[in-house]
Amino acid sequence: MASKRQIRLGVSMIGLGYHLAGWRHPDAPAGGNMELPHFIRVTQAAERGLFDMAFLADGVGIRFHDEPAGALARTSKNVQFEPLTLLSALAMVTKNVGLVATASTTYNEPYHVARKFASLDHISGGRAGWNVVTSVTDMEAQNFNRDKAPGYDLRYDRAAEFVEVVRGLWESWEDDAFIRDKARGLNYDPSKLHVLNHQGQHFQVRGPLNVARTPQGMPVIVQAGASEQGRELAAATADVVYAAAQTLEDAQAYYADVKDRMAKYGRERDHLKIMPGLMAIPGHTRQEAQDRYEVLQELVQPLVGLGALSNYLGDLSAYPLDGPVPAPVNRRMHSRAQIFLDIAARGNLTIRQLYLSVAGGNGHRTVIGTPADIVDAMEEWFTQDAADGFNILPPWLPGGLEDVVEMVVPEMQRRGLFRTAYEGPTLREILGLPYPTHRRAAIAAALGSAAQ
Amino acid sequence: MASKRQIRLGVSMIGLGYHLAGWRHPDAPAGGNMELPHFIRVTQAAERGLFDMAFLADGVGIRFHDEPAGALARTSKNVQFEPLTLLSALAMVTKNVGLVATASTTYNEPYHVARKFASLDHISGGRAGWNVVTSVTDMEAQNFNRDKAPGYDLRYDRAAEFVEVVRGLWESWEDDAFIRDKARGLNYDPSKLHVLNHQGQHFQVRGPLNVARTPQGMPVIVQAGASEQGRELAAATADVVYAAAQTLEDAQAYYADVKDRMAKYGRERDHLKIMPGLMAIPGHTRQEAQDRYEVLQELVQPLVGLGALSNYLGDLSAYPLDGPVPAPVNRRMHSRAQIFLDIAARGNLTIRQLYLSVAGGNGHRTVIGTPADIVDAMEEWFTQDAADGFNILPPWLPGGLEDVVEMVVPEMQRRGLFRTAYEGPTLREILGLPYPTHRRAAIAAALGSAAQ
Repeated sequence: MASKRQIRLGVSMIGLGYHLAGWRHPDAPAGGNMELPHFIRVTQAAERGLFDMAFLADGVGIRFHDEPAGALARTSKNVQFEPLTLLSALAMVTKNVGLVATASTTYNEPYHVARKFASLDHISGGRAGWNVVTSVTDMEAQNFNRDKAPGYDLRYDRAAEFVEVVRGLWESWEDDAFIRDKARGLNYDPSKLHVLNHQGQHFQVRGPLNVARTPQGMPVIVQAGASEQGRELAAATADVVYAAAQTLEDAQAYYADVKDRMAKYGRERDHLKIMPGLMAIPGHTRQEAQDRYEVLQELVQPLVGLGALSNYLGDLSAYPLDGPVPAPVNRRMHSRAQIFLDIAARGNLTIRQLYLSVAGGNGHRTVIGTPADIVDAMEEWFTQDAADGFNILPPWLPGGLEDVVEMVVPEMQRRGLFRTAYEGPTLREILGLPYPTHRRAAIAAALGSAAQ
Repeated sequence: MASKRQIRLGVSMIGLGYHLAGWRHPDAPAGGNMELPHFIRVTQAAERGLFDMAFLADGVGIRFHDEPAGALARTSKNVQFEPLTLLSALAMVTKNVGLVATASTTYNEPYHVARKFASLDHISGGRAGWNVVTSVTDMEAQNFNRDKAPGYDLRYDRAAEFVEVVRGLWESWEDDAFIRDKARGLNYDPSKLHVLNHQGQHFQVRGPLNVARTPQGMPVIVQAGASEQGRELAAATADVVYAAAQTLEDAQAYYADVKDRMAKYGRERDHLKIMPGLMAIPGHTRQEAQDRYEVLQELVQPLVGLGALSNYLGDLSAYPLDGPVPAPVNRRMHSRAQIFLDIAARGNLTIRQLYLSVAGGNGHRTVIGTPADIVDAMEEWFTQDAADGFNILPPWLPGGLEDVVEMVVPEMQRRGLFRTAYEGPTLREILGLPYPTHRRAAIAAALGSAAQ
């Protein structure tokens, strides 16, 4: 079983679900985005379903662009737990599932980020993952002494150096640095401490990190890079990519492009898992699945729908809802904006039809049907070089995830496409990733043997 | 019982204990500073002892100044959990004890700090506290793009504005802002959202915070301010002060000075709890207590002792250990340095005698004796306007704390000086502090009623 390639599964635990109207679902705990029992239930469902990891998106502020007045108050995308503090708590009520938090590189410091994820890795017994993002909204910039977000190139330059520094800090101590010899009074072996002394364009960080080497060597690195620099950063450093694609062809092109870039960094293709987002809505029949979807679609308010488009296309509220989708008023986050425009063009959609089309998956692939339909859709991408796994986006929580765990996972297992037990205690073992070499120790050892 | 003034107790959970040789104690788990079960045991002991709060010190880097080579590797003050992630985990295995983490204002951003403590307050059901500090060591500065720590005035100016911004962000949402009306599709009442729009000397922070108002209104604010600006900041904003004093007279002078400063901020004297550090080593007899102390004193290595002095007085390793304490070579952290020099002068101590004298309490008051001796010492300060409570500094962990819980707490209870049950679920209730007024809402209400 261990030798057969199997599908990886993550789940996005965003608040009350991924669908814009998720919080209005009759069975949703409407205040769940600030209630710990809600997240305990969701994470335990993911673990019951043997998911590789549970994933928390994040913003350093309420994030919207050009949103029509009143839209924000009609969504639940306003308050949330801070991801690291939440995942530490959830580590205490789970044993195996990976715990991945988003932390932005734009208004943070690598030393803080390195510490927190290393600490979570110790607390969780080796289950921590860091989703590396840059912060694009001006709303977030204004919480950090700026008027506007930095431009694309600056954000990505900083992100690449930020990741390099964090990985360097995670190698401050060798695995066996702490000898804790009470009798001799020696707590650590000084030869196994590596001071980073990073001097770069954006950061000067001496180190060492004041956290020991972590249970899985270093936390798993996740990225969502869709753009040119995002793909390159992922190929160089990511263990997992959380991608977005609507069609098999787009997903295959993305998959090949990112994996092809890995060789020049000396990396094996299998050491990066590409996991596109997937909003999966199962039912015992296709009609039941469609009915479940419609419950939410009918709860999408026009203001909220326009708000969902405004993040990428600008405020379209001056245009008729039932008229064609105009050229973007203020285009942002170009990769996702293009997905939206492609959806509209493919279906010749009105504004209302477009926002209803993306209200659930926000541009991610959506599959509504029987468990067999959903696993067929997964299997197609998985076996045709479009995906190594999927990041499940439940339309509402906890029920939308529990449906997948109870209906879709057994069908995946029946086909031999998914694990029937966890492969190990750490997230790297679950994902099938090797324990990372301690590069600083390896260099020191090579220099030492050369000198002899 | 509720009306009688009682002693407040905190405990410092610093790694393996406060004593320099704590990690070498025969019964200490030598690797405990990176082991979760160790901290679970310590926190649960504090809760069993009905302590008000458990307290985590922190540094954003390994902190030392002018330390002789080899000293650091002979202490356990090297690696630790990041406090916020650790306290979230500990919140899941405790119910009542307050959870206080240190977070520095020097290399952090108020938005990040406001979020994390608000999140911890939600996770813990209203038990979070923030110990506000500035970062003084150059070692920490070098992890954040600088060569040297900013000067005293700049650090404290920034700290004061930082606290103001964080408190403002904690008032982003009124208590009942989130109506979560599924039927109307309205998630919050926009009139109960307050955008901060802070424009200051160090920070421009728009807000709102993306975390709802917290269970105790806002987390408890703790400070250790000993210096002039530290005292003023404490009088203006702190709920608890963690002070350091060796003598009754010094403690009384400090107590009166800080409480006297409160009136000009419109604050009641009882709304700030002054809790000096206290290293308490109990024994069934005075001899047993002294023997327990000597076990640790005999484990202090000269290099480590010199390292403890170097932080405040500079590197004294060129001077004879058994000669007199010279004038400081490189004096830092002046309040604490003065305490060290006073101790040396009062006892006419050699270098060795000085470092042995501060190896346990690091300048904090130390009481070694029977439970009655220790409670006598507490009661004297508590009844003579020198303290509202004490921050217990166990010389080693977990045993040093468990001794206090099992021997000292019952004696305090017997005299009616300490609670026999927790007063409420939140730290503010436990400390006897009022639920904080939502200032922004009060202002809005006042303006509204004036306009009618």
